[in-house]
Amino acid sequence: MSAVSIILVEPQMGENIGAAARAMLNFGLTDLRLVKPRDGWPNDRAIAMSAGAFEHLGEPQIFDTLKDAIADLQFTYATSARRRDMVKPVFTPQGAVEDIGAKRTGFVFGPERTGLANDDIALCNALIHVPTNPDFASINLAQSVLLLAYELSKANDDSAPRTLAYGDSEAVPTAQLEEFLTRLEGELETAKFFKEQNLKPTMLRNIRAMFTRAELSTQEVKTLHGMVSALIKKKK
Amino acid sequence: MSAVSIILVEPQMGENIGAAARAMLNFGLTDLRLVKPRDGWPNDRAIAMSAGAFEHLGEPQIFDTLKDAIADLQFTYATSARRRDMVKPVFTPQGAVEDIGAKRTGFVFGPERTGLANDDIALCNALIHVPTNPDFASINLAQSVLLLAYELSKANDDSAPRTLAYGDSEAVPTAQLEEFLTRLEGELETAKFFKEQNLKPTMLRNIRAMFTRAELSTQEVKTLHGMVSALIKKKK
Repeated sequence: MSAVSIILVEPQMGENIGAAARAMLNFGLTDLRLVKPRDGWPNDRAIAMSAGAFEHLGEPQIFDTLKDAIADLQFTYATSARRRDMVKPVFTPQGAVEDIGAKRTGFVFGPERTGLANDDIALCNALIHVPTNPDFASINLAQSVLLLAYELSKANDDSAPRTLAYGDSEAVPTAQLEEFLTRLEGELETAKFFKEQNLKPTMLRNIRAMFTRAELSTQEVKTLHGMVSALIKKKK
Repeated sequence: MSAVSIILVEPQMGENIGAAARAMLNFGLTDLRLVKPRDGWPNDRAIAMSAGAFEHLGEPQIFDTLKDAIADLQFTYATSARRRDMVKPVFTPQGAVEDIGAKRTGFVFGPERTGLANDDIALCNALIHVPTNPDFASINLAQSVLLLAYELSKANDDSAPRTLAYGDSEAVPTAQLEEFLTRLEGELETAKFFKEQNLKPTMLRNIRAMFTRAELSTQEVKTLHGMVSALIKKKK
């Protein structure tokens, strides 16, 4: 996927420009373009809110019109909270990201209060609609930039949905866990834990379920051995 | 999926509490809990940044400790930008959302500067790690709340990734498009557009490709008919 340009049309609050820049860089986007920012550029509030992002991004490009800002791009998506009276394909954020391919692409965001003007939307190839709570739909400008940048980054990310990091240790090999369970059973037997022998197989299965489910590390199984040893000693 | 509680531990900036509340409500979450907010509660900056969200959410619950704040929950995820020296399952945002099921769940966020203390992380069942740019990893507090709320909302959302809304019109039935293409071919023939007859089939196929790809509405095909009529007249 090609890198995507972020175009903010007439952004009003410097804070939002800065927060958008930070959000972009958080997810690896670097091309920020501003069309007629209300307070001009540079903007101290933008820089304060960016948490240093502009040091990495460089200066945003400034344009007088959206048409100029997207001149070199091949496909642009206008973000819009409202449905518009124009026949344009409307994508979810994820749908847009899956649609991009190798085209030089821009995501276009309107001013905070009004969103994009219809004439600006007409310049874009498609719309992105973030499906928000219909009773409280208006999303902050930098937050929408973040969502799109996040979806783009996700498409390039192959992190497993769930991992377990064992630090200096590692997942315990089955044989070592079995050794512990065998020892535990023996100590429990000695301690007369199994009052009714006919229930013993079920109880052992339940104990095993706890310890296998816990995805223990080698170190943790050592700790469990130590705990059992200590408890036996205390008992004596 | 059950509703998820958002727990902010010792949030420093009122602005972030307000922006988090707005982001929650944007995506339909309503249970906000604060553990020892630095500037107490109520907080004028939080209310100013919330864009009215607290009018819908009600007052956040305030707690002295994270342990108290999560007492009624069944499963909690600590959000963390750093890897920790604890053996806990680590989920991506989407991975966590897919994992939740019907458990009463909380997402726990640490203070802006330091993130969650290890003792607070130890209270939680699992970690969520948002995979950000390793060279610029630190994400704003309200932005992380937004990402998680967005992922939760996505899991409940069945929007098609791409739709085309025709407003008052509708997608043109094939027969009406064919009628237009037949007419267009006739008018182009009359106008001696096809200079080399052996290329005519290819050119017609290419013209057809443009108009079928455009996913035209009935209204738009009428407009095209009108355009052709006007152009013929002008020519005469």
